[in-house]
Amino acid sequence: MHLLLTNCNTTEAMTEDMAAAARTAATPGTEITALTPAWGPESCEGWLDSFISAAAVLDALTTAPEAVGPFDAVVMSGFGEHGRQAARELLDVPVVDITEAAAHLALLIGERFAVVTSLSRTAPLIEESLRGSGLIERCHAIDAVDLPVLALDADPDRTAAAFAGPARAAVAAGADVIVLGCAGMAGLRERLEADCGVPVVDGVGAAVVLAEGLVRLALVTGRAHGYAHPLPKVRRGWPVSAALGRSAVVHRPPAYRS
Amino acid sequence: MHLLLTNCNTTEAMTEDMAAAARTAATPGTEITALTPAWGPESCEGWLDSFISAAAVLDALTTAPEAVGPFDAVVMSGFGEHGRQAARELLDVPVVDITEAAAHLALLIGERFAVVTSLSRTAPLIEESLRGSGLIERCHAIDAVDLPVLALDADPDRTAAAFAGPARAAVAAGADVIVLGCAGMAGLRERLEADCGVPVVDGVGAAVVLAEGLVRLALVTGRAHGYAHPLPKVRRGWPVSAALGRSAVVHRPPAYRS
Amino acid sequence: MHLLLTNCNTTEAMTEDMAAAARTAATPGTEITALTPAWGPESCEGWLDSFISAAAVLDALTTAPEAVGPFDAVVMSGFGEHGRQAARELLDVPVVDITEAAAHLALLIGERFAVVTSLSRTAPLIEESLRGSGLIERCHAIDAVDLPVLALDADPDRTAAAFAGPARAAVAAGADVIVLGCAGMAGLRERLEADCGVPVVDGVGAAVVLAEGLVRLALVTGRAHGYAHPLPKVRRGWPVSAALGRSAVVHRPPAYRS
Amino acid sequence: MHLLLTNCNTTEAMTEDMAAAARTAATPGTEITALTPAWGPESCEGWLDSFISAAAVLDALTTAPEAVGPFDAVVMSGFGEHGRQAARELLDVPVVDITEAAAHLALLIGERFAVVTSLSRTAPLIEESLRGSGLIERCHAIDAVDLPVLALDADPDRTAAAFAGPARAAVAAGADVIVLGCAGMAGLRERLEADCGVPVVDGVGAAVVLAEGLVRLALVTGRAHGYAHPLPKVRRGWPVSAALGRSAVVHRPPAYRS
Amino acid sequence: MHLLLTNCNTTEAMTEDMAAAARTAATPGTEITALTPAWGPESCEGWLDSFISAAAVLDALTTAPEAVGPFDAVVMSGFGEHGRQAARELLDVPVVDITEAAAHLALLIGERFAVVTSLSRTAPLIEESLRGSGLIERCHAIDAVDLPVLALDADPDRTAAAFAGPARAAVAAGADVIVLGCAGMAGLRERLEADCGVPVVDGVGAAVVLAEGLVRLALVTGRAHGYAHPLPKVRRGWPVSAALGRSAVVHRPPAYRS
Amino acid sequence: MHLLLTNCNTTEAMTEDMAAAARTAATPGTEITALTPAWGPESCEGWLDSFISAAAVLDALTTAPEAVGPFDAVVMSGFGEHGRQAARELLDVPVVDITEAAAHLALLIGERFAVVTSLSRTAPLIEESLRGSGLIERCHAIDAVDLPVLALDADPDRTAAAFAGPARAAVAAGADVIVLGCAGMAGLRERLEADCGVPVVDGVGAAVVLAEGLVRLALVTGRAHGYAHPLPKVRRGWPVSAALGRSAVVHRPPAYRS
Repeated sequence: MHLLLTNCNTTEAMTEDMAAAARTAATPGTEITALTPAWGPESCEGWLDSFISAAAVLDALTTAPEAVGPFDAVVMSGFGEHGRQAARELLDVPVVDITEAAAHLALLIGERFAVVTSLSRTAPLIEESLRGSGLIERCHAIDAVDLPVLALDADPDRTAAAFAGPARAAVAAGADVIVLGCAGMAGLRERLEADCGVPVVDGVGAAVVLAEGLVRLALVTGRAHGYAHPLPKVRRGWPVSAALGRSAVVHRPPAYRS
Repeated sequence: MHLLLTNCNTTEAMTEDMAAAARTAATPGTEITALTPAWGPESCEGWLDSFISAAAVLDALTTAPEAVGPFDAVVMSGFGEHGRQAARELLDVPVVDITEAAAHLALLIGERFAVVTSLSRTAPLIEESLRGSGLIERCHAIDAVDLPVLALDADPDRTAAAFAGPARAAVAAGADVIVLGCAGMAGLRERLEADCGVPVVDGVGAAVVLAEGLVRLALVTGRAHGYAHPLPKVRRGWPVSAALGRSAVVHRPPAYRS
Repeated sequence: MHLLLTNCNTTEAMTEDMAAAARTAATPGTEITALTPAWGPESCEGWLDSFISAAAVLDALTTAPEAVGPFDAVVMSGFGEHGRQAARELLDVPVVDITEAAAHLALLIGERFAVVTSLSRTAPLIEESLRGSGLIERCHAIDAVDLPVLALDADPDRTAAAFAGPARAAVAAGADVIVLGCAGMAGLRERLEADCGVPVVDGVGAAVVLAEGLVRLALVTGRAHGYAHPLPKVRRGWPVSAALGRSAVVHRPPAYRS
Repeated sequence: MHLLLTNCNTTEAMTEDMAAAARTAATPGTEITALTPAWGPESCEGWLDSFISAAAVLDALTTAPEAVGPFDAVVMSGFGEHGRQAARELLDVPVVDITEAAAHLALLIGERFAVVTSLSRTAPLIEESLRGSGLIERCHAIDAVDLPVLALDADPDRTAAAFAGPARAAVAAGADVIVLGCAGMAGLRERLEADCGVPVVDGVGAAVVLAEGLVRLALVTGRAHGYAHPLPKVRRGWPVSAALGRSAVVHRPPAYRS
Repeated sequence: MHLLLTNCNTTEAMTEDMAAAARTAATPGTEITALTPAWGPESCEGWLDSFISAAAVLDALTTAPEAVGPFDAVVMSGFGEHGRQAARELLDVPVVDITEAAAHLALLIGERFAVVTSLSRTAPLIEESLRGSGLIERCHAIDAVDLPVLALDADPDRTAAAFAGPARAAVAAGADVIVLGCAGMAGLRERLEADCGVPVVDGVGAAVVLAEGLVRLALVTGRAHGYAHPLPKVRRGWPVSAALGRSAVVHRPPAYRS
Repeated sequence: MHLLLTNCNTTEAMTEDMAAAARTAATPGTEITALTPAWGPESCEGWLDSFISAAAVLDALTTAPEAVGPFDAVVMSGFGEHGRQAARELLDVPVVDITEAAAHLALLIGERFAVVTSLSRTAPLIEESLRGSGLIERCHAIDAVDLPVLALDADPDRTAAAFAGPARAAVAAGADVIVLGCAGMAGLRERLEADCGVPVVDGVGAAVVLAEGLVRLALVTGRAHGYAHPLPKVRRGWPVSAALGRSAVVHRPPAYRS
């Protein structure tokens, strides 16, 4: 099976982290190719970043079949970011967004989950994303560590300590599952579980097992209503990457790299 | 990996059908053991059946470790039936109910799903089950074919025709995914997809891939609040099966049967 | 009028307390017979207890007509416990659950009520019960004193003091009615009203006046949909009490005791 | 026990009908005094009528202690009309509105109730009333017979026939209880139950048994927040009846009439 | 354009304050006539005041065409008070209530607004008003300064200081817009914006721009359902002001005063 | 006052229609400059179009200050399209989206509004947009005429006839206001009002009066939480129009054209 993962931002190191987390979660035999968009913000922290990112990721998905060959499903790796419905319109394969993936699995192992994210300004996007997926009802809280996305990687100890506080507070307030509210933080999971005493869900891993499951069951996006294929029409300057003369960066599976 | 599937009723032929569907969905290397409860209704069609079934299935799960040895996760196969939260209290391994499993996958491939079930009297139970899981928001309708559960198997042609009507009506009214609202009907899926033009989700298969995913990601039930282990106390006459002198029937994987 | 009260657990002393509270609330001329189930947990504190209890109480109700003769309505006395819908399917007389009864009366005398219960692990069950009855909207909070059910009776002073804290906090936070979130605590009412300055509702008394009212108005359960009578079918080992050779304990009204 | 019933309109014949229904529902020993407001619309059919009626009924309640002596509870008889919260502020005794009373009892005997009222223009008021009481969730529909209130009494056969249509349609669409959406129609109940096959709830009777129950349990309105007594202040021209030189009409219980 | 503003209470000084705020907000060329009702409470602080006020304001609107000549729209100035739907039934011109007006504009400039009002006892009325308008979803909190309405004007410094506390707390808790929860406080706006760092919306100004907008776009109340004109019928003693021999006080625009 | 209107698509004729509608609605003295984005779809009909459009419109707004000079507020003219929250982050002036604008005014003149849009595939976007603004509660239905956006202009008679059907059906089903669910259709309003007998709201006009109102009241976007200004960071290839060497088309007010 071949899964395509898209990073929501243009920081290649984060794409690599996400791809690594995805490969750890995947069943043997599943290959993960990752894409860094050709344009867009270096990190997504708010509405403007998210809407630019959505277009840039959709651009990468538009050009992906040519760039990476056939794939069986897509994992959209950007926590709380926009665009998943358009990817479902665009592609014949299933599309799983890490925000909803994390919530789906959290609902299976707890009564109320809390999301701990980077900056509090992203909480409204996460809320809208979960609401749009019909998964907000048992989301108990969306809290933030107030560290910028690009700082999360810099000092793992500080990052882990920063997440422990809101996570423990959320558990004390009633949550029995914590969702990591940003991508590329899978490495934090074990330590945070020890710190706060409840299971911690990483969206990338969650999305990989859900995408594999959909493929294995031959479940595809329903086309009867809002997810019908896009209508043919003039979309001036689209895909933007062609006009920019710059392509999405393809992060191939290790086996292909030599 | 070893998954334990519980049938909600005491009809062994239905347990076999469910186990077969589960085995079809499972990854190579996953074994499925199924249990028919030692007591309870021959089919679940309403509140009384459901509450008797919940206790009987929990009885089977209480005695399962001794009867079947270690297992990695549980699939509770009864559409709209009660008991999943207690199974989560009771067991150290993840528990996936087919009602919620079907809804989780349906939400990944459509905007609104409809459930088509056997008898309309079970619709309120399905609604309560989905509401309890926080998954009701995008459930567009719960319709019924008005055939009793035990009649579903009898004549596949009549059954398929019976499901096609409500399924097509639900699609016309706005659903883009259909959920099969009863267990053991996986064989209907392909035909119904052709009939109504949208993807059809079978809960047993859905639960198997979700259970496998949770196990692979080492996600377990959160114990911080409502899913804490049951308190030690006198539970008179429990498990009932011991008092009845009758055990759950163990349906072992084919490899073990010879 | 003859009301049948069922205790959710097998502790006969609690059944006696509940029956006493019911008799205090009843109109002269109303007799209360109470039942202690033949099997099940000695107290209900969580999902497993609740589902075992539901089946055990339904068992007691199945055999009740023979054991106690005709009755006009049923009061199900277990706060937040399962089973009321099945009792409605099963019986021709009205069925009133104390959880919903307390909420109904609380809504008539305040804008927002708070429930104070024994253990916090039971809060999710109470929430589900109120949501299922359509009565959650104006429930302001469900708090716990964190005393086990069987300890509540032991030391009335400690129990009263334990309830006063959460009750006063709930009033300060916006509630104007307190609901006692467990059965058999009616004796606490007067003292707690003095402590927290708002009316306190006991579910058993509430259920008695509602059951009497339904009977007086000749209102019975509607059979058109989900509360249709159970279908005739094989329910193996049911009722369990027959198989166990043990009957529900009948607590007759004082007049019958000599 | 002495209950005070207020008619929402100034048609004395309707007050008499309501009082008769209340007396039929009351326990022996309960006396019902009814009031026709001194001013206001002859029937309530919309927002303007309802707000005039609310003030006129509150006027009658302000002057009631002097006019009728002490009473133990109030039944406000106007389906979907305004004012109940102010009556709770004003009076030391419990106040039960027939709209909410009917919904409370309907929720105890069915899964979903439908209201059948006089004119469709009153449906939004009924919806707001039920929403305000936290009782809208399981209200399945509010339908109308499109007969003016004052015509309902004129021809019982035509009225019964008019209600049968929407009631049967509501049952077919999923309701299992019908609520009579206007006061003074209790006489319709038996016939409509036969016509549509589900229980039918009349708000006046429902309110009487609830008011009796609250009194018997010594439950009074909670004063901690929104239902605190009205602040002392100048209310110019209030009560209006004094300024008009006209009093509410007192409809005493039959025993007092001679 | 000629707008008619109604004060909800009988304190003429407050009517003058409201009219001044309205005139400040109005486009050049818009004239504001204000009305003090002929009867009712000197301030509205709770359910009883609100229902008396609703009838008194509707009385003033019934007699307004004769008293003030033609007008193009109505601004109902009473925060959280009742009556707007009846005004829509009664009048051919658009009716804008300041509670909903403030919420409409707040929703355009923030994600979550908080209301800061006079007394906490009025919070339930404000909540009901916003819920009735379909605008409660993004109302984050309704807090109170616990100063009586008539004290708000007395000492501007104390009033401003009193509002700053709850406003700042609401912002810290997640609100990004503050709504002034009482009429006639427009003077507070600038100072409170400086104090709490977010925009502050005054309902009177908001209602004026909305009323002007509706008039300019020739949008009138829809009559197809609940806002159909009141039915002709006997409304005894209505309008009350006629019976009282007392008229609403007309506060004419400055140009008309000489 | 100077308002900037952005068309969501790249069809300049539609920008001209929208600008004309805006100029008709504006107060004398208000100038409208309109922008056609430099890139993006020629019409927005689904999720992909909407996310491309959001980025293209945000691009136009990023470069607008330089292209058109200072402006006082923005009207985003695309019914159900994405991006408004990012525009609020980006700009210091108020931003009004026509979807929410139409709903705001509709709520002031009716109890329930219905949206009639072009293609049914856009209904989920409109629903998400209204839900995100907290305005979905009283949206009664979102129906479609099933004509592509670019066909709407072609034959005014056919278009008007196409809208009349769903509009009349929505009124019959309970709506008392119709919202035109696409931009540039203001010309339809009068005719449709005659056809369906209820007021019809055009989003462009609604947004203009709301934007003018916000400016007049000096109300700006609250920055305390999710609408804080975007963080400074590398956004590769942004704005795209610069990289494409193509600018948004500026449609100046008539007075400037000579």
